[in-house]
Amino acid sequence: MDVISVIRTKRDRGELSPEQIDWVIDAYTRGEVADEQMSALAMAILLNGMNRTEIARWTAAMIASGERMSFDTLTRPTADKHSTGGVGDKITLPLAPLVAACGAAVPQLSGRGLGHTGGTLDKLESIPGWRALLSNEEMLHVLDTTGAVICAAGDGLAPADKKLYALRDVTGTVEAIPLIASSIMSKKIAEGTGSLVLDVKVGTGAFMKNIEDARELASTMVALGTDSGVKTVALLTDMSTPLGLTAGNALEVRESIEVLAGGGPADVVELTLALAREMLAAAGIEGADPAKALADGSAMDVWRRMISAQGGDPDADLPIAREQHVVTAPASGVLTRLDAYDIGVAAWRLGAGRARKEDPVQAGAGVELHAKPGDPVTAGQPLLTLHTDTPEKFAYALQSLGSSYDIAPAGTEFTAPPIVRGRIA
Amino acid sequence: MDVISVIRTKRDRGELSPEQIDWVIDAYTRGEVADEQMSALAMAILLNGMNRTEIARWTAAMIASGERMSFDTLTRPTADKHSTGGVGDKITLPLAPLVAACGAAVPQLSGRGLGHTGGTLDKLESIPGWRALLSNEEMLHVLDTTGAVICAAGDGLAPADKKLYALRDVTGTVEAIPLIASSIMSKKIAEGTGSLVLDVKVGTGAFMKNIEDARELASTMVALGTDSGVKTVALLTDMSTPLGLTAGNALEVRESIEVLAGGGPADVVELTLALAREMLAAAGIEGADPAKALADGSAMDVWRRMISAQGGDPDADLPIAREQHVVTAPASGVLTRLDAYDIGVAAWRLGAGRARKEDPVQAGAGVELHAKPGDPVTAGQPLLTLHTDTPEKFAYALQSLGSSYDIAPAGTEFTAPPIVRGRIA
Repeated sequence: MDVISVIRTKRDRGELSPEQIDWVIDAYTRGEVADEQMSALAMAILLNGMNRTEIARWTAAMIASGERMSFDTLTRPTADKHSTGGVGDKITLPLAPLVAACGAAVPQLSGRGLGHTGGTLDKLESIPGWRALLSNEEMLHVLDTTGAVICAAGDGLAPADKKLYALRDVTGTVEAIPLIASSIMSKKIAEGTGSLVLDVKVGTGAFMKNIEDARELASTMVALGTDSGVKTVALLTDMSTPLGLTAGNALEVRESIEVLAGGGPADVVELTLALAREMLAAAGIEGADPAKALADGSAMDVWRRMISAQGGDPDADLPIAREQHVVTAPASGVLTRLDAYDIGVAAWRLGAGRARKEDPVQAGAGVELHAKPGDPVTAGQPLLTLHTDTPEKFAYALQSLGSSYDIAPAGTEFTAPPIVRGRIA
Repeated sequence: MDVISVIRTKRDRGELSPEQIDWVIDAYTRGEVADEQMSALAMAILLNGMNRTEIARWTAAMIASGERMSFDTLTRPTADKHSTGGVGDKITLPLAPLVAACGAAVPQLSGRGLGHTGGTLDKLESIPGWRALLSNEEMLHVLDTTGAVICAAGDGLAPADKKLYALRDVTGTVEAIPLIASSIMSKKIAEGTGSLVLDVKVGTGAFMKNIEDARELASTMVALGTDSGVKTVALLTDMSTPLGLTAGNALEVRESIEVLAGGGPADVVELTLALAREMLAAAGIEGADPAKALADGSAMDVWRRMISAQGGDPDADLPIAREQHVVTAPASGVLTRLDAYDIGVAAWRLGAGRARKEDPVQAGAGVELHAKPGDPVTAGQPLLTLHTDTPEKFAYALQSLGSSYDIAPAGTEFTAPPIVRGRIA
């Protein structure tokens, strides 16, 4: 087997054989295939695609590159969720304890933010004392005793994916549906969950900008999960507008706690409940009522236990950024657009995200929204509040907000698009 | 400027701006753009193409990465030739002294073989004492005093191309017409020739397997040369059958000397004369008769002076391989096909070529042909003689010859295709 013949096969629109796929993933993980060879192959895959058979084998080869976990010792059925990433997407925070409160075991192996989308671990690390890094034993212990755990994925899961993801990030080959699908699903299948609900984002703030691409990605992942014996369902959800009223680490934790306390923005509550119902159904749990678990405080109880079990203080004050800058509405009327991508970039520039993996993030930085599409606004009222510890970043953040919103004349009819735009099972 | 936005532009079928091209070539040469980033870009270029404007800028940027030479001190007009590479393509050897004998100055900065195509420098190095490596001053001196020089290109010419070519070789991105064209033309334009004749090979033994690709490559290069003030013409020539009756280093030198002595195989003589006439016309030399210069020994005189000037002994015996193996015709009839690629691979496996740049070659190794398409053959007669110093390689070489020829029943009408299949100016 030689790597150039593998690259040529895909370059010339051929189908990679199972032997070619197994060999190239293994040889790349071992360092026999060089980065410059794998990036050429990744670009050929991005431009010429892979069929379902190839994607399934590619995923299996990445799983085989590392260890497989098992939740067989748990008495509850496991229910996992994965979001493809968006702006203000704090849903994992209220959702994991909520679904645990309804009877499932919810393992959430999460990541950090890179680029304009935030990372769940970065958000939770704004809680004083909270630790993302757990051993496999610690993770199982927290999951077993509290019903939910949110932590970093261990290095042992799909190391081929870890290496390939870092390569794609610097070679313009992130946006390949077969590679995105196999990257996500290799980790989820290796992790050993019994059921999985995918939140595939679509819109300006998501990787998938249009519904057709999102549908293709979702159905690819559902097929991969189902073929591997994982009960898998996907929701296609809107990411043209940020979720909720905050984008930024501590800001989003605060909003998540509001939801767990029975309040919070309507869109966050709606999506949290929709995903919770899918997770419970996929895990085979009947009769639970997640809306009630939010209202009666049982989801909040799990949250507090889960945060404490990972060293965090659920009663501690959350960090607040040192400086604020208010953006006001330039006209009166109806807000008809508030762009998720632009808000995400502004939050990132304010210090909520990182440009490189090794960069630190600011816990308090981010953007707070005072109106959402469909809301009436009055000239001069606060539209956005920008938060940062480093006020010299305001100007840079404001650059990305210049055309981030539209205000139509008062009385204009406007209906915001639904949060859930489709379902694939 | 960042490299990912450059890669994305081409990945998404956009046109690279002049600024993007200048920056990425310069940054790659300096090592700021990594190999894995350039290989992803090369694959995107291979699959999505570049337009004429982009190719011209890419070529100019590669020229700007190094030094430019000048032949302004010469009194004769310069005429250069470049072949895209084939099997048995020894044409440079008789052609350079022939065109010099007709009044032009002929600088031939040549390469070594890699893969199934031979290298002009490897061939000449089978002449005892001959040196490929000359300083710029030595090169100009040989050219000025003998009229022709064949030597290695210096490291100073288009270093970006040198680095990029080595990368393409290991990443399956050699066969991109914009990259092949800019690689060849950047070196030729930097070299400073006044006129250039391109021999674009087409057929199984060439990079370009079909006439449409060969035509596109040829017209791309002619446009690049013309736009840079170099009078440029291309011939499209057949490479479905090896040129002449030999493939291998000393074997081809011997055949070249036969041509210079007024003999040699008809196809080699025909192509040598066709290219000589194009080179003389492009250089503006009228009234010279290359056929006469072969017949009257004046081309041979230049050859002897040129070889001597580079340390070689034109009268020395050429190396002969230690072992021979004869392949006989299995049937009587008419030879209708003798595949250039298969013969090239056999010669390479016998030791005439190299698998990696640092490998040595055997001077005596190669394949001798005893018949060409159109010739009658008798069962049991010698068809090919294989030459090598390492007889354990015969079996490996024979593997590539199993379906390398066709013999049709005696009396079958067969006309070999013309050597020159097209002309682009």
